Amino acid sequence: MSGIYDVIIIGGGVAGFSAAMYAGRLKMKTLVIAAIRGGTIVQTNDIANWPGIKQTDGITLATNIEKHATSYEDVSVIDETVIEVKKSSKGYTAATESEKHFSAKTLIFATGTEWRKLEVPGEKEFAGRGVHYCALCDGYFYKEKIIAVVGGADSATKEAVLLTQWAKKVYMVYRGEKIRPEPITLARADEKIKQGKLEIINNANIIEIKGADRVTNVLLDREYNGSREFKLDGIFVAIGHTPNSSLAKSIGVNIDKGGHIKINRNSETNLDGVFAAGDVTDTGFKQAIIASAEGVHAIYSAYEYLKNSKNKE
Amino acid sequence: MSGIYDVIIIGGGVAGFSAAMYAGRLKMKTLVIAAIRGGTIVQTNDIANWPGIKQTDGITLATNIEKHATSYEDVSVIDETVIEVKKSSKGYTAATESEKHFSAKTLIFATGTEWRKLEVPGEKEFAGRGVHYCALCDGYFYKEKIIAVVGGADSATKEAVLLTQWAKKVYMVYRGEKIRPEPITLARADEKIKQGKLEIINNANIIEIKGADRVTNVLLDREYNGSREFKLDGIFVAIGHTPNSSLAKSIGVNIDKGGHIKINRNSETNLDGVFAAGDVTDTGFKQAIIASAEGVHAIYSAYEYLKNSKNKE
Repeated sequence: MSGIYDVIIIGGGVAGFSAAMYAGRLKMKTLVIAAIRGGTIVQTNDIANWPGIKQTDGITLATNIEKHATSYEDVSVIDETVIEVKKSSKGYTAATESEKHFSAKTLIFATGTEWRKLEVPGEKEFAGRGVHYCALCDGYFYKEKIIAVVGGADSATKEAVLLTQWAKKVYMVYRGEKIRPEPITLARADEKIKQGKLEIINNANIIEIKGADRVTNVLLDREYNGSREFKLDGIFVAIGHTPNSSLAKSIGVNIDKGGHIKINRNSETNLDGVFAAGDVTDTGFKQAIIASAEGVHAIYSAYEYLKNSKNKE
Repeated sequence: MSGIYDVIIIGGGVAGFSAAMYAGRLKMKTLVIAAIRGGTIVQTNDIANWPGIKQTDGITLATNIEKHATSYEDVSVIDETVIEVKKSSKGYTAATESEKHFSAKTLIFATGTEWRKLEVPGEKEFAGRGVHYCALCDGYFYKEKIIAVVGGADSATKEAVLLTQWAKKVYMVYRGEKIRPEPITLARADEKIKQGKLEIINNANIIEIKGADRVTNVLLDREYNGSREFKLDGIFVAIGHTPNSSLAKSIGVNIDKGGHIKINRNSETNLDGVFAAGDVTDTGFKQAIIASAEGVHAIYSAYEYLKNSKNKE
């Protein structure tokens, strides 16, 4: 693990390990630094949109891609969080939380996203005690309970539908006029609504989370069934993700308004030898298959970059 | 099958059926018109670079994606060749060889490529009788025979390595200084060279193909082993592909110098409601996973386009 790598890939999700798999094929000396193996997709238990696989789950898909990548001898992985990257004379260095330092000629940011927070009183206080961000991770603990899912996008609706399998009742609290999932998700939600398991509260926001040991109720910004107070056992926040782009930003990579790393069609950033792939990029349509392709593109661009640098020497 | 489709996808390869699969999920009324089911990938027997699958073959991968797509009720497929597309008042129409006509609000070109020809005397005459373009399709017939593969790229080298499993001896005839496969393919070729099964003839071109019933020998543009005549039983031409973009061009889609359809990161062409994906596009790095992601992006752009058109109505 010493010496200088051809590439350091920061991130162990679909994009990162897809890049690493091709790196292995291209015989590039590769280090994947993974804060969480699998990335955000491991929170999804029902994946039906990976071309060629009618039905799988996130852990299986992520694990298969990871195993595929690590089957190549030139690919190493460490489970660490990168806290600093720097430009060096020969490329880039990455420092981890446990004070390890690694050097590489090129860098790929496949750092993904983290959950967007509601930013309301009580959210931090009750995190893990009634406030959650991952239905698949924590939904199981809400058997026969009352839950609110905050959000109205496809992922929020999927979370809500998923939670109906445990909960007595799931409410979706959505700030907009009408939830906006994919048609196929909407059809599933409608079924749950008919069954009385799911109910949508549109044009509403949770503005405070209250409780004692655990969450007991929330305050809405409008009346619902005659009151702004709303009793429940748990809240699942599903209002999207924010890109983990601060490391990239710190070395001068261009970032868009939403905090995403700007890339071109070849997954190149504005910096020589620095590439990005997956949910952290400014690609509009966030899908696993697209993240994977971006990872592959990123490593190929890194490979071409190294080849051209060598020719210049 | 009557009425107007939301989208017609021309092409039944990885890109086309990946698009169709998402179209099914988005509940778009979809017609795939496939001249060849599976596209060019079905000619590959050894696929090790589809993320998450360590080893498969082209037919299996293509069939899985196709089955996935056709599992959605809104997706229809017909096996026809499109010979004409036209702009209509409501979108586009496509006419097939058997004089069927179909209409759709949007079009996706996933028309792929066809083999580039050597364009030398004898090539046409002996096609199928010693001149071939697909090792996996026709290599089997060359047990204990002598074969030349023309080309030096990764795909040519793979073809040559594959052919050594049947042939007594395989020669690669390459116009350049040195063949240029992926490192992992090169390692495999080197092994075959060591075993005496493979031999590289660099800086050479086949300028004529000769024979009677079948190919018997070729004429090189330089001497090799003391002669420009070279005896062999078969030639596999692997000098790349040309994009099938003439239909797209006929309605005014922008095409680059190499004949590829110009797209942006959302798989949009210059024409409203017309998208493209896969090997026919101007994407630099041609890989199945990238074609698939482009297909997904194309259908999502078509979906967004239809949604926006509807809002304007």
